[in-house]
Amino acid sequence: MKIPTLTIVGVGLIGASIGLAARRRGLASHILGVGRQAANLERAQTLGAIDAWALDMPAAVHRADVAVFCTPVDAIAGQVLEAAPGCKAEALLTDAGSTKAEIVKCVEERLPTHIAFVGGHPLAGSEKRGPDFADADLFQDRVTIVCQTSRTRAAALEQTAAFWEALGSRVRIMAPEEHDRSLAVTSHLPHLAAAALAAVLPRHLSDLTATGFRDTTRVAAGDPSLWTAILLQNRQPVLAALREFEACLIEFQAALETGTPAALAALLDRAKKVRDALGN
Amino acid sequence: MKIPTLTIVGVGLIGASIGLAARRRGLASHILGVGRQAANLERAQTLGAIDAWALDMPAAVHRADVAVFCTPVDAIAGQVLEAAPGCKAEALLTDAGSTKAEIVKCVEERLPTHIAFVGGHPLAGSEKRGPDFADADLFQDRVTIVCQTSRTRAAALEQTAAFWEALGSRVRIMAPEEHDRSLAVTSHLPHLAAAALAAVLPRHLSDLTATGFRDTTRVAAGDPSLWTAILLQNRQPVLAALREFEACLIEFQAALETGTPAALAALLDRAKKVRDALGN
Repeated sequence: MKIPTLTIVGVGLIGASIGLAARRRGLASHILGVGRQAANLERAQTLGAIDAWALDMPAAVHRADVAVFCTPVDAIAGQVLEAAPGCKAEALLTDAGSTKAEIVKCVEERLPTHIAFVGGHPLAGSEKRGPDFADADLFQDRVTIVCQTSRTRAAALEQTAAFWEALGSRVRIMAPEEHDRSLAVTSHLPHLAAAALAAVLPRHLSDLTATGFRDTTRVAAGDPSLWTAILLQNRQPVLAALREFEACLIEFQAALETGTPAALAALLDRAKKVRDALGN
Repeated sequence: MKIPTLTIVGVGLIGASIGLAARRRGLASHILGVGRQAANLERAQTLGAIDAWALDMPAAVHRADVAVFCTPVDAIAGQVLEAAPGCKAEALLTDAGSTKAEIVKCVEERLPTHIAFVGGHPLAGSEKRGPDFADADLFQDRVTIVCQTSRTRAAALEQTAAFWEALGSRVRIMAPEEHDRSLAVTSHLPHLAAAALAAVLPRHLSDLTATGFRDTTRVAAGDPSLWTAILLQNRQPVLAALREFEACLIEFQAALETGTPAALAALLDRAKKVRDALGN
């Protein structure tokens, strides 16, 4: 795969990491960054994540053979639809948003039929923001989910998978709704739990936190506006995951209230088995 | 401070780390390890954490000028009381248990008055177990809580603080009950939340976890029997912390159910501020 022009919309941590990975792997002849903040784009260029940059989003996407949208989840669909009409006929549009069902549905309802949009989500990231934290190896050996719907053409699906694989990741293909139900459990619920743990910490106890607290709450440092949009776009699956979590907390609570070691140990055993299976 | 004989009861991760730290800092002339498993003690000696070892716990403590109990929280008080009668008159006994109120109360009720026991808890550790994971720098710049009660003599308190400071840690003095209420929020509740997150992960979603899930649930790999004892010894404060946490989750739930971006953002903002203040 060799992309004549790769346009990256949004050169934050994810967008700039895509640029660095594409450059290191010789995936694109020309990497064009586009965004709203010249300083950020300039910085991404200095870091070598993009060859050039522009502020006119639709025009930059029109020049693309592949364009990847790395903007907040509540901006992606609108930007794709705004840019689509002037795209090259054979252009491929994909994204890196953390939610998929609403984005894909919204885009597919209104996208001109000759344009291919295939949703993607690399399961890699950080609580940090901006091109300074970009990493050419961010996607290496990480899973990227690529979304297939009844509208998705085989060639576009294959090309999208090849794009994310070329950046180093292992591709899993699934329906947008399955993505969202899965990520509600593996990412959105943990974020919410971490945020709640941080939120209930009284200030005077900060000094008494150790690595356990810090690991458990690390993701709570993520950007609140990005996460508000993610949680709202995936409301129903997140609420379902939250109910399961609360039910498990109630099991813990009952075991504590009755002082039943066997019940507590069984819960902790189950958790340890699951966690051990994940490795570091 | 120079301890003629330091006895370490239990040479797991914490006990062996105390040995390594004491040796590196020249804190003791002789470091004696005692435990139930010869293989573990042999390994601790090979690693340089102890100079010699024994299987007779009371006898090993009787030789000590300072003895530190690094065994599970439900074993400490019994061991201290078992060993105390034959101790040197000027001996200091301390511990590294993750709970304090029950241990200190149980020991103080029955300890001969000429023996000093001052509870301690270094806020450092790992989900790993055993001397192979010991680290001479484990306590460096970490807080160790040293417990003062109405029975604690000033000289013993000072000596205990000096001991933990000599291992590199910053000492905070507080009542056992304050320790337990604090740690319920900063350590025991996060453990419980991490375990519940891991417990509700369906096996088929393991592949779709990324660093966020792994960080958030890392402590759930901790030993279930150690944690069962910790949670049970600190039941009431943990239940109180759990209720606060559940109330915060219900706020999240309400914000999601009503789809209120401002309410979600406010919760995530509060969490981010707390987490950012902790650093990495």
